[in-house]
Order: sequence, then C-alpha cells, then structure tokens
Amino acid sequence: MGKLDPATRPMATSQDDYLRFGLIGYGYWGPLLLRSLERIEHAEVSLVADLSSQRLAEAKRNHPRIEVTNRVEDVIEGQLDAVLIATPLSSHFALARSALLHKKHVFVEKPLTATSAEARELIEIAQIQQRTLMVGHTFEYSPEVVELRKMVSDGDLGRIFYVDSNRLNLGIFRKDADVLWDLAPHDLSIINFVLGMRPSAVSARGSAHLHDDILDVAYMDLVYSDGITAHVHVSWLNPNKDRRFTIVGDRRMVLYDDTAGNEKLKIYDRGVDRPTYATSYGEFQLSYRYGEIVIPYVQGAEPLAVECQHFADSIRQHSLPRSNGEVGRTIVRILEAAHESIIEGSKYIPLFWD
Amino acid sequence: MGKLDPATRPMATSQDDYLRFGLIGYGYWGPLLLRSLERIEHAEVSLVADLSSQRLAEAKRNHPRIEVTNRVEDVIEGQLDAVLIATPLSSHFALARSALLHKKHVFVEKPLTATSAEARELIEIAQIQQRTLMVGHTFEYSPEVVELRKMVSDGDLGRIFYVDSNRLNLGIFRKDADVLWDLAPHDLSIINFVLGMRPSAVSARGSAHLHDDILDVAYMDLVYSDGITAHVHVSWLNPNKDRRFTIVGDRRMVLYDDTAGNEKLKIYDRGVDRPTYATSYGEFQLSYRYGEIVIPYVQGAEPLAVECQHFADSIRQHSLPRSNGEVGRTIVRILEAAHESIIEGSKYIPLFWD
Amino acid sequence: MGKLDPATRPMATSQDDYLRFGLIGYGYWGPLLLRSLERIEHAEVSLVADLSSQRLAEAKRNHPRIEVTNRVEDVIEGQLDAVLIATPLSSHFALARSALLHKKHVFVEKPLTATSAEARELIEIAQIQQRTLMVGHTFEYSPEVVELRKMVSDGDLGRIFYVDSNRLNLGIFRKDADVLWDLAPHDLSIINFVLGMRPSAVSARGSAHLHDDILDVAYMDLVYSDGITAHVHVSWLNPNKDRRFTIVGDRRMVLYDDTAGNEKLKIYDRGVDRPTYATSYGEFQLSYRYGEIVIPYVQGAEPLAVECQHFADSIRQHSLPRSNGEVGRTIVRILEAAHESIIEGSKYIPLFWD
Amino acid sequence: MGKLDPATRPMATSQDDYLRFGLIGYGYWGPLLLRSLERIEHAEVSLVADLSSQRLAEAKRNHPRIEVTNRVEDVIEGQLDAVLIATPLSSHFALARSALLHKKHVFVEKPLTATSAEARELIEIAQIQQRTLMVGHTFEYSPEVVELRKMVSDGDLGRIFYVDSNRLNLGIFRKDADVLWDLAPHDLSIINFVLGMRPSAVSARGSAHLHDDILDVAYMDLVYSDGITAHVHVSWLNPNKDRRFTIVGDRRMVLYDDTAGNEKLKIYDRGVDRPTYATSYGEFQLSYRYGEIVIPYVQGAEPLAVECQHFADSIRQHSLPRSNGEVGRTIVRILEAAHESIIEGSKYIPLFWD
Repeated sequence: MGKLDPATRPMATSQDDYLRFGLIGYGYWGPLLLRSLERIEHAEVSLVADLSSQRLAEAKRNHPRIEVTNRVEDVIEGQLDAVLIATPLSSHFALARSALLHKKHVFVEKPLTATSAEARELIEIAQIQQRTLMVGHTFEYSPEVVELRKMVSDGDLGRIFYVDSNRLNLGIFRKDADVLWDLAPHDLSIINFVLGMRPSAVSARGSAHLHDDILDVAYMDLVYSDGITAHVHVSWLNPNKDRRFTIVGDRRMVLYDDTAGNEKLKIYDRGVDRPTYATSYGEFQLSYRYGEIVIPYVQGAEPLAVECQHFADSIRQHSLPRSNGEVGRTIVRILEAAHESIIEGSKYIPLFWD
Repeated sequence: MGKLDPATRPMATSQDDYLRFGLIGYGYWGPLLLRSLERIEHAEVSLVADLSSQRLAEAKRNHPRIEVTNRVEDVIEGQLDAVLIATPLSSHFALARSALLHKKHVFVEKPLTATSAEARELIEIAQIQQRTLMVGHTFEYSPEVVELRKMVSDGDLGRIFYVDSNRLNLGIFRKDADVLWDLAPHDLSIINFVLGMRPSAVSARGSAHLHDDILDVAYMDLVYSDGITAHVHVSWLNPNKDRRFTIVGDRRMVLYDDTAGNEKLKIYDRGVDRPTYATSYGEFQLSYRYGEIVIPYVQGAEPLAVECQHFADSIRQHSLPRSNGEVGRTIVRILEAAHESIIEGSKYIPLFWD
Repeated sequence: MGKLDPATRPMATSQDDYLRFGLIGYGYWGPLLLRSLERIEHAEVSLVADLSSQRLAEAKRNHPRIEVTNRVEDVIEGQLDAVLIATPLSSHFALARSALLHKKHVFVEKPLTATSAEARELIEIAQIQQRTLMVGHTFEYSPEVVELRKMVSDGDLGRIFYVDSNRLNLGIFRKDADVLWDLAPHDLSIINFVLGMRPSAVSARGSAHLHDDILDVAYMDLVYSDGITAHVHVSWLNPNKDRRFTIVGDRRMVLYDDTAGNEKLKIYDRGVDRPTYATSYGEFQLSYRYGEIVIPYVQGAEPLAVECQHFADSIRQHSLPRSNGEVGRTIVRILEAAHESIIEGSKYIPLFWD
Repeated sequence: MGKLDPATRPMATSQDDYLRFGLIGYGYWGPLLLRSLERIEHAEVSLVADLSSQRLAEAKRNHPRIEVTNRVEDVIEGQLDAVLIATPLSSHFALARSALLHKKHVFVEKPLTATSAEARELIEIAQIQQRTLMVGHTFEYSPEVVELRKMVSDGDLGRIFYVDSNRLNLGIFRKDADVLWDLAPHDLSIINFVLGMRPSAVSARGSAHLHDDILDVAYMDLVYSDGITAHVHVSWLNPNKDRRFTIVGDRRMVLYDDTAGNEKLKIYDRGVDRPTYATSYGEFQLSYRYGEIVIPYVQGAEPLAVECQHFADSIRQHSLPRSNGEVGRTIVRILEAAHESIIEGSKYIPLFWD
C-alpha cells in the first residue's frame, strides 16, 4: 500500500530517506513484521533470509517481488539500510552485532539478547556505529498501554499501590526459551513503561511440567520505589487465554483486559476510606468507596504497525526509539535476575541500574 | 423452619439427640451461622453472646425467642450441647479451650487458631473430652468444590500439573488479621481438600499499602508431592471481585469461577501433545489439543447450611468432621510458615506433617 | 427488624398511623411480600389467608406469631388497615373489590385485574371509599429503573428512538395466565414509567408450544408519540435467563441488563452522524460516533421492600401511589389489546386513554 | 497462496478447469471477495471493474497485477469464466443478466435481486445458458451454522419449537437498501438453511428514525410447518454488536453467539417436564430440567473463503451450489412479503413455493 514503485524513483540512494529493509527469520514474527513494514511509506523490504527453504518458499508465495536467501550474510552485508532480526533468542546477539558492524540500523525481536552483558555490548556498538538499535516490545506501541501510561503520569489513579499482570494461554511451547523468556518480556516492558520506572529487586518461582528443564508456568514479584510492587503470572498451560492487567491506585483502579474486544480498559472510580464501624471484640472495617466504572473509547491501532513505523521514524530522525537498547537491556537483566532467584529458592535479587 | 417447637417436646434432654447450640460472637459470621443453625431439625439455638449490647439488640430483633448475654461464661458453662465461636482470631483458642473443658462440642470459625501449637492443644483436649472439634472451612461444603475433588480423585483431569487460586476484592479490611489470615484459609482449605494432600513447602510474599503493619495483598506458592504446585493470590485491594480457581491436568483443565452464577465450573477438554513442527533456527512447537468445554449442572446448595448440618451430624454420629481440628491445624501451620517465608525474603519453608 | 413490639404500644389504634396488614395468598409472591412487610416500622402483618392448609402450615413455620386462616373473609372483614392480594389473576377483582368495600387499603399483585373494565371499577370504588389502591409493579421501585427514568426525563439520551425489552427464561409455567399476562406486565410498566408515556397502539404475536391454548413465547410492538416505538419479547422457553432492556436515543444509548450483578446499567456515548463517504454505485454511509461507556454506580435497594414501604407511606400520607390503580389499568388495557391483535393476525390495535 | 503462476501454465484455456474471475464492484464486499478468490488453486482474478477511479486505484495498490477498468462491459464481455457482482442491490439484476447472457458463471452478493420476479428470470437464464448462478449467503458456509443444521437434522435438539435471531449494531447505514434488505438476508438464509425449510407466512414491522423513508430497525415473524415459528430482529441503531441466535427444541436448546470468539455455540441440555406442583388457588407449575451445557469445539474456517471455493467447485463439477439461485429467490420473496406486511399493518402474508 502507498509504497512508491521503485521504477518511479530515478535516483534513490541511501543518502535520501528512502529505506531498504532486510529481514532475518521468517518463523512466527517474521511474516507479521513483513506485513507491517510494507505499509511504511517511501520504504521497501528488499530481502528475506531464513535457513529453511520451505519458509523461504512461503515468503516468496506471499510476497512475490521480495528476494529471498538462505545466506544470512546476504542481508547483513547487503545494500540495505536496516535489518530486522526475528530469529530464536540464542542467535540475536551475533546477528545484531554483525549487522551493526556493517552499519545497519537494527531491530531485534524481544527479548533483545540472552544476557544483559550481550545487550550492553550491542548498545555500545550501536553508539559507536551511530546506528539505531531497537527491540520489539510491541505492547509499548499499543494504544491501551499508552493510555495507561498517561493515566499514571497524569495522576488519574492517585498514588500507585501495585500492579498485577497475567499472560496465560495454552502454548505456544518453544524449545529455545522457557515461558519467562517467551512471555514475561511483554509484562515487564508494559509495567516499566506504564510506571516509568525500573524495579529495584525481583523474586521468581516457576515449574516445568511438560519438560523437566523448561519452565512452563512462572511467577515474578517486583519491587519498585515508593512502595510500589508488581506481580507477574505467565503460563503456557492455562485452559483459556488470560491477559488481565490490573493497576491499583489509591484514587482509581484500572483493569486492562487485552481479550475484551473494544472494551479493553475499565477504570474503576473506587478506593478505600478510613475505619467507620467496629464490631464487638475489636473487629474493625474500612468503608470502601464505590463510584462509576468508565470504559474509555480508545482509537484502535495495530501495535506492530505503529512499532515498525516508529523504527523507520527513529532512523530518519536520528532519535532514540521508545523501546531502545537500554530499555531492552533492562528487561533482559530482570529476566536474568529472575532465574537467579529461582535457583536461590525465590529469594529477592537486588537490581542496580547504572 | 421445620424446628420442633420446644413446647411440643415433653421430655427432651441432653441424653436424646436434640441439640442446644450456643453462639459466641454476633459480628459478620455469627448472624449467618445462626440462620443456618435454625434450619437444623430437632435442634435449637438457645443463647447468643457478644460484648456489644448493640449487636445483642440486633440479634434479639432478628431472633426474638433467643436469649442473649454479654457474659461469655453463660454460654461456655450453660446447659448447652455445642458452642459455635465466631469471634476475632485472637480469642479463638481461649474460648474453644474452655468450651471443650466444659464438655461442649465446639465449632470455630476459620482460621482455627492463631498458632499451630494452640491448634494442636485444642485437638488433644477434644480427644480427651471426647467432644467434636470442627473448623468453619465453608468451601469444603460447597457443591462445586466437592465436584472438583471428585474429578481429581476419579482421574478425570489426568495427572495434575498445578493449581492457581485467586481471591480478590475491595475490602473487607480487618484489624485483627491480615489478608493472609482473612482470605487465604479459604484457598488453602479448598486446594488441600481438592487434591487430598498437604503441601511440603510454602513460599510467600505480600505488601501492606493501607497500614504499614497489615498485609493487604499477598501471594503464596505451595509445593505438593508428584510435582504438583499451587499458587494463591489474595487481595483486599482489587477493583472487582475475582474468585477464579484453575486446576490444570494433562488430560483436562477446570476453571472454577465462584462469581459465575449457575455456570461456576468450566471443564476444558484440552491438553498438549508432542512436538510437530520446527521452524528454521530450531524453533519447536508442541501442538495443543482443543476439545469441547463442558459446564456441568451442579445441584445448588448453601455451603454454610451444609456445614452446620454436618456439625450436628458429626456430633450425633460421634464421627470426625470433614473439616476437623487436624484439617484446621494444617491451614494454620501453612499460614505460620507463609509468614516465616515473608520475613525470610520469600524463601521456601519446608512443612512436616507428623 | 426494628418492628415495635405490640406489647410496648400502650394505646395503638387504627386512628394513629400504626398499620395492620392482612395477606391473601401464600403462593410465590405472598412469602416475599410478607418478608418485606415485616421490615416496615410501626406496622405488623396480623393475618395470612390461603386455601391450602399446607401453605398455611408453611407460613406458620416461617412466622410463628402471625395468625393464619383458610377463610378469606377473616382478612377482608378483619380488624385490619390494609390487605395485600397475591392470588391468581382470576380472583384479583372479586377479592380487591370486597376488601375496598370493607374500607381496606388494597395492594394487588400485578397484573391488577383480568380486564380493564374490572380495573376501572376498582379505581372508582377506591375513590368512593377513599382508600389506597396500588398494584405490585415491582420494577417501578428498582433503583436502576428509577435511574433510567431520570436519564430520559433529563434528556441525557437526547431524543428517544426506540426501546427493546427482553424477559426470557425457562419456566415458570402458570396455568392461570399465559406468558404475556405473567411476564409482560413487568416490561410494559417499566417502559411506560421510564418514558413517562402511554402507548397509542399495540401489535402482538405469540405461540403456544407446550400447551395448545397457552402462549409461552410472545412478542409485542408498541407505538408511542414522537415516533417512539417499543418492542417486547417474553418467553418461558429460553435456555438462559435474559433481561436485556435497551433504550436508544440520538445522543446516548443505554443497556440495562438485570442479570449483570453490580454492573446492570451501561451508558453508551454513541450516536450516528451525517453521511461522509460514498462508494461507487451510490452507496452511502453514515459515520457513527463512538464515545466512552459509563457504568454508573447505583446504590442497591430491594425493589419489593421499597414497594411495600411506598404502600405504607401512601396510606399514611393519603397520597396516590406511584403504581396506582390507573397505572395498573393501563397495563391491563395494553394486554387486552395485545390479545385482540393476536386474534386479528397481529394488526395494530389503537389505544385510547381518557 | 499456492496460486499457479500464469507463466508456468503452457496451454491454459477455458477448456481446462483453470478459472478466470472478473469482479464488478470494489466497495465493501469486493475487496473481501477478491482476497478469498486469490486463495483458490488453479484460478486467478483477471479484472476488476468499478465506476470510481479512486476505488480502482485502491484495488491496484492492493493487487498490482490485477487489471482494472471503469467499463463494466470489459468484465461482462471479457475473456473470463466467471463474474462476481458486489454492487448495490439495484444493479444486481441487470449486471447478472447480461453476464449470464455472455456465458459467464455468476456470483451475486446477497440479496440476489430487488424483486423475486427478477430472481426467477435470472434462474431461468442460468438454466438456459447452463451456467452456475450463486448468491453470497456467507453464513451458509460458516462452520457454526453448518453444525447447527446438523444438530437439527440429527434430531439432537428434539422437536423444534422456535428460532430467535438478532443482528444488531450501530451502522452501517446504506442509502440503497433498508435494514431489512441489508441485514435480514443473513438471518433468513441461516434459519432456512438450519431448519431445511421455507416459511409459509411472514409478518413484519419496522421504524425509520434517521431517515423518514428508510427502516433502520425491523422485526419479522415467520411461520414454518410443524408449528415452528421464527423471530428476527435487525437494527442499525443498537449500542453494541448483538448476534445472538437461539434454537429452542423440546430436548435441547442452543445459543449461537457469533461475537463469542471461540465459544460461539452453547448447547443447553434443558427442557420442560410435566406439572408437578400446585399451589393454592389452582396455580400450576411445570418442572424444568437443567442439564449440562456443552460448548463444542468447532474447527475454525473463514466462511467467505469456503464460499468462494464452493463457487469454483460448483462451476468445475457442474453442480448446483448450496446457495443457488432458488435459495436466493426464497430470501428475496420473503423480504418482499415482509414489506407488504409492513404496509398492511403487520398482518401475516402467506408465502407459496412452487
């Protein structure tokens, strides 16, 4: 749609702001990214790489004019402005690193890397190479999440007490990552983005039911400043899809249910007031205030499309992306600490942000 | 209803199976227990005690023929067969102890006592005095929970993976107990009853937002044998009432939503099968099986009424109640250990059951 | 609750405002009315009549201090201030008539009478006897319905387009009335009350599936002034309980779902604007405006209790009840016309209100 | 996907079963049909016609290799095997007629024509020309509706009592058709298909709130054999989207909610048994049986894709399509009669099927 036909571009070069994208990995996320990239004005996806010729055939079928290759180097060393990496986690670092070293702007699917040390190295290389490094925290581009962040920063909810986030469903089961690395990056990036904070400690626990070595159900507890706490529950083993995210403040409370069609946000004008009634034997009760519930109308937008457009804009404006390398490193560091906590019997692992 | 009019009982005595109940505490649970007790055939509630004359006046208004007193001794030493204790936790032990010593059968609202040592002492006294000791684990008498226990023991769900229980709402806030002691006894008694097991370890964490010293949000993780785990989330600070209880087995999964009117149980014929599809870069996926969902018809029954009838039956048949002293002690011990865990930074506290 | 003990009333007489109620009919509504009447201050229910000794025994069990009789005359001619009639429809007129002639204030369960001529006669007798005549249109005393009426009269919804009301469930099946006489009085009284209007014509159709002669599913269409229309769907043969009531205005629309717990009212800030977009071949489309949805907090109240209190207040204040005889006659007249319409192949029957 | 590249087809001709489609009308349905047609193996969409050059530009953007034209004749007279007509109702007949006369197989968006006489003429021409004539009753190709038809024909629901169908939303408002012609064809085609019957009479009523001359809310009542009745409620003026379709049988009842994600079908094992209990004053009640509710797992499928594939299969196999011309005529005839009924004050209009 709306894409300039290359034929009509007499002297398009990397100097002007026309963007040539290359994509590595045509598994689950690759096709989705490709569809979004094609909607970007004054840009094109020139090359797609995957090790599986079956996947490449599929890519060719869906996008006849895009070149495909099973040689990753063709993308990394090719005549491209930016590279998107949608491969298994273990390969993120090596691919992103060489792409940056070849002067490419780089987008990496979440989580950014398998270790925070790798993430830090990518950030440094991107700075040296003066290239954009962005991680695919899709939800930071969802209109509901942006609305939540606004409510918190505007103080609509009053003082924040705690956040509770659930991401439960049946599958998908991945061999290259456990449920924490697969699902929790969503919850963590949403919480950090909405609160505008980074946690100071994390405790986690999980269990592996289908494979001895791979967590398929996990719980995390995060400590933020101002006494704010957060709880995350992720599962690959839940009968139904559950995406309930709750923020409790002393003035209002919000339930964000990502499965609720056009009514995803529910703002409860509810709170707790001081004691009013004492029964015999010293029982005390607080009275709690019940007000109206508001379901705001949020203009729909496809987060992935917004995200890809944001990547293009950041490259063109030489601006730091919302979900930049440092934001990605934060999530990776929390996940690392969560696994330390699991190994150490769920004890809280402090987090230091320099 | 259906209660024999004392006037028509020529020679009713404590020797026959006619039961005279006394109630201590007319706060939140007292009135509810009283209403249920009055439905029991061949029995009566003779005396209600409370420290507050206002509460006693209320009791008198609702039940004109019942005697009331502000002297607890009148109940404990009175011409009664059984005593129900619905007072704040701190007073449970002393009241139950002297009632047992006065040869009364005793029902104590949950949790049984404030310490497991106290619970153990009550159990011993009850044995010596040959009196019934029962704790008010109401949900063990709910038809849905009984149905869940049957499903698990019949193997309908296959091998159990894990249980997740939520008990969230706004208030009620109590001064004499935190949210763990107030709400978690429900979840713990349901889980133990449904699994027919006792946990071997517990980890917990919580936060106090309204009062520095009283937890109002808490999470517990329990380890059972056969690799079964359970997670409990209780909160006094949630915008809406949430009572979702999930059991995940390898053959079926059940969602028990206590707020879902006549459709509280949802049995999902769903499971996960072995890997079927590998993308490039070694991504693996399990296929998951989707079958029908069955909402069984469960004959309604008021748990509190069933519970009170069960107390009367246990007394008359000299049989051990379903929610007997030992069952009550188990819950108290878990709660104790949960608080140890919180103090020790959420580490797992092992539980030994002799 | 809070009922003065007669013993403590030195010189209570019919002259002061103490009220003695008599109840005729202890079937489905009788016990519910009785429970509400007992909550009224400075009043008592003295006598209950029913033809079935089994029902009377039940009444005695639940309310030991109330006298019971199987002679209707004992109530109608007794030392009572007011009589409540909760008997099958066919007996409403005769019982209400003689009660009024015996100077009793009269409350009749809905529908008021089996014919509008009977209703008119009762109204006249009540005027002559200077006694209160009230019909049990319970929903006119429900806080949600009162809120709806306020929204409409305040113009919150803008110009009203139409109303759609559903009252569907499985059973209860009555021999003395069809589904129109059993359920539709609720819908009709709500619609008239909320709009503050009476319809100018009605069309109806229905079907009898369980008994050849008794409608168990029926639909009504009503025409009001200002181009407002209303549709009513009642059924005894629906798998689930459905109580959705929709009011569509040009500024806002409201969905009132009586089964939705604490979230019964949903106010949609939605409307339709003028054409904006024309496709080829002359297709036109209006753009429609989507705004927020508000679920107002409505202070709960038991309609039946409010209704009974309103009956007592109307007697004491000599004021016309909200659901007075004329309001009751309106509903009966619409039901009569609906049956005429069914007989005449669903044609619209005009309604004249003098 | 999987579409043969023309280049690789050495001797493709109209003789073999390769299909060349032409599409007239690129408004709302056109683009959706096009997307589905492109998924058909061994076929292609060669030409798209629309009067609006803006719409044609849009078509070209989305499908660069498809030719476009603003001359309808290019399609009707072109080297094509089949023509799909997705234009406003008024033009259906003329376009379909000349396409058939030019030996094209013809697919017409619902409703087939503006009058049943036109429909009959198209059917005759198709027979003479030996060409396939199909109407776009999309829901007859939805897996849930196919499942409903099976339940009814297998007798799972027992004897059918009645059907109730709702199709309510806000917009879309069309100038070329009222809400009956726009939405009711869906309900009518579903009901006829599921019951395997055609109605013997119809009564209708509606109202026009936004434009004096165009119905935006309407109700239809249909009479089928065996005492089966059906009710249809369609509206362009409802705050939320409502797609509830209920079938009530004497053994089971089904609720089909097309908005309920993966749980669209709910089968209630419920019915009504004979009288069991009589209150005083001759009140009678049926007891009703409550059994389990089953939500079957229905393999998802995109109805439009199935429909387009069915069109191709019917052409290739020279078989009569499920939604053939006669099926389309039936719906048009019912809609005609519905408007007669509205004009004649909602009286029932008999329907004769020769």
